[in-house]
Amino acid sequence: MKAITTAQLEAVGAEIMLSNTYHLYLQPGADIVAENGGLHKMIGWNKPMLTDSGGFQIFSLGHGCVADEIKGRRSFAHTNRKLLLKISEEGAYFKSYIDGHVHCLSPEASIQAQRKIGADIILAFDECTPFHVDRDYTARSMDRSHRWEMRSLREFERLANGTQAIYGIIQGGIYGDLRRESAQFVSENNFFGQAIGGSLGGTKEQMGEIVACACEHIKNVRPTHLLGIGHMGDILSGVKNGVDTFDCVHPTRLARHGGALVDPEKNDGREFININNSRFTHDTQPISDGCMCYCCRNFSRSYVHYLFKAKESLSGQLLTIHNAHFMVNFMERVCSLIANSEI
Amino acid sequence: MKAITTAQLEAVGAEIMLSNTYHLYLQPGADIVAENGGLHKMIGWNKPMLTDSGGFQIFSLGHGCVADEIKGRRSFAHTNRKLLLKISEEGAYFKSYIDGHVHCLSPEASIQAQRKIGADIILAFDECTPFHVDRDYTARSMDRSHRWEMRSLREFERLANGTQAIYGIIQGGIYGDLRRESAQFVSENNFFGQAIGGSLGGTKEQMGEIVACACEHIKNVRPTHLLGIGHMGDILSGVKNGVDTFDCVHPTRLARHGGALVDPEKNDGREFININNSRFTHDTQPISDGCMCYCCRNFSRSYVHYLFKAKESLSGQLLTIHNAHFMVNFMERVCSLIANSEI
Repeated sequence: MKAITTAQLEAVGAEIMLSNTYHLYLQPGADIVAENGGLHKMIGWNKPMLTDSGGFQIFSLGHGCVADEIKGRRSFAHTNRKLLLKISEEGAYFKSYIDGHVHCLSPEASIQAQRKIGADIILAFDECTPFHVDRDYTARSMDRSHRWEMRSLREFERLANGTQAIYGIIQGGIYGDLRRESAQFVSENNFFGQAIGGSLGGTKEQMGEIVACACEHIKNVRPTHLLGIGHMGDILSGVKNGVDTFDCVHPTRLARHGGALVDPEKNDGREFININNSRFTHDTQPISDGCMCYCCRNFSRSYVHYLFKAKESLSGQLLTIHNAHFMVNFMERVCSLIANSEI
Repeated sequence: MKAITTAQLEAVGAEIMLSNTYHLYLQPGADIVAENGGLHKMIGWNKPMLTDSGGFQIFSLGHGCVADEIKGRRSFAHTNRKLLLKISEEGAYFKSYIDGHVHCLSPEASIQAQRKIGADIILAFDECTPFHVDRDYTARSMDRSHRWEMRSLREFERLANGTQAIYGIIQGGIYGDLRRESAQFVSENNFFGQAIGGSLGGTKEQMGEIVACACEHIKNVRPTHLLGIGHMGDILSGVKNGVDTFDCVHPTRLARHGGALVDPEKNDGREFININNSRFTHDTQPISDGCMCYCCRNFSRSYVHYLFKAKESLSGQLLTIHNAHFMVNFMERVCSLIANSEI
């Protein structure tokens, strides 16, 4: 988690954390994580944890869309040179955004790295199929992902020591029949759960349809994760379709840029306020009235606004605490709705 | 406090915090601090607090030595234009490093700002005499500081509501007879305590002599503060001469740049290690063996090294916690030495 300690994350009530294999693979490297006793021990997080496979970041680099999360981090990322060099049956060849070294991430390499990192839940290695490709590419990409997922599963079983579980990934882009085929593939193989990945379309409506289609064809009662989704409306829609867990940089990235999540019903439909706005200069109310997070219990909008203006790192820390608390609270309300059969 | 929350500062056992009037005067402004109910309430710090007078930063700008603490913060600070425009009997005219606006900080303006900020202890406004000036300038500067301190005292008494106390400041540079005169001046007037300010010489030996000389001529049992001093050896020397409290950006600034304070006796005489050094890449020991701070109880040198390499803001946060904890612990040991008459 950027900007806050794991103690602060635990204090807001978070129950699981997703970490990026791609970033950890490049820096500090999976071996160093292992030397530190695994990621739980290294970062001081004693609760459940999952890692993605590393594929998303590699492929988002390759398709010319440099992932936001590495923006501004290293000069290498600013050159706009394609960092994804080649995709073959073996795996994906890419250049490190840190030092330019060439790496190959294969299903086996991803699982080996995730084994060393040591999260409780790990993900099979797949190609994250982009949005602007045709049905033919999407189908061929999905087939390769299925072969990669089987290799991931075999490598997982070869290395397993009983401390981890593996999820398969449902690909198929925006095509209902491909999603059905992929959901059936994952369901028929020995994965602990499944994640829905790849392109979910260009509109919220399309996203809802694709997630519904994938969930409909899952043939088991394993847990289902929706990758990279974190807006409130999309989470509600996913939950209605049967998704159990979500991950997204949105709440914490928004926080570091001054966006504080608020209840849309009390804020003219807006999901967040931008605390950088000068209208908060004299506003001595908390970020969100009634919020019980550390930030809202102790500090005013005026103070947080000042911290952002003064470029104090504490600014991002306080809003990250607020946004993480907000999302945990939101998911608790969602759980109540499920328990009361209101969703 | 940069990089950490006031809750984290309280957790390490800190009992008092110094805040800079100069920075708060320019941003967000003393009025906004007052609107927030004063600085204690604004930043969530319910323990004692003192503010300096704003003079140090203004005069360190004026003498061509741009204070480190504003380095890298705003483009204005990088122009190397002199920000101190004029010193007159009225006060100091200077340009804001934020927007270039011209301000005059006088004794009355400083006290008014400190009244609004609302610290428990505030400081009289003085000229922070630099090192490389002659005896004649130092004497005239001291005389003006004494006049400014009397104006500060009158303004303080005019505005007093019983919630604050004011310290006088002992100037006189490196000249023993001037230090004596200034100590007597402060002692004879109605200050709650005194701070030793200005140049303390060019060597640690000279600093010791000047502090000893100032302390020797204090004619009362009021508390004595030594401004801007924070290295362990200098603190020990100050305590031996009768100083009660110290302030310094050193431990927290060092932390943000990767310097972790350690016991010199266990580290070949070094007061800190630089965690950026590649020799810590695989070092899974805590920063300081046996240290009970949050960082050392939970994280390895290898992990903190990685956080600095990855430019994660958490890096500065963790080392700031360690260094603040280290200094609190150090001062507790100093108090034990005093209690046992070993110092």
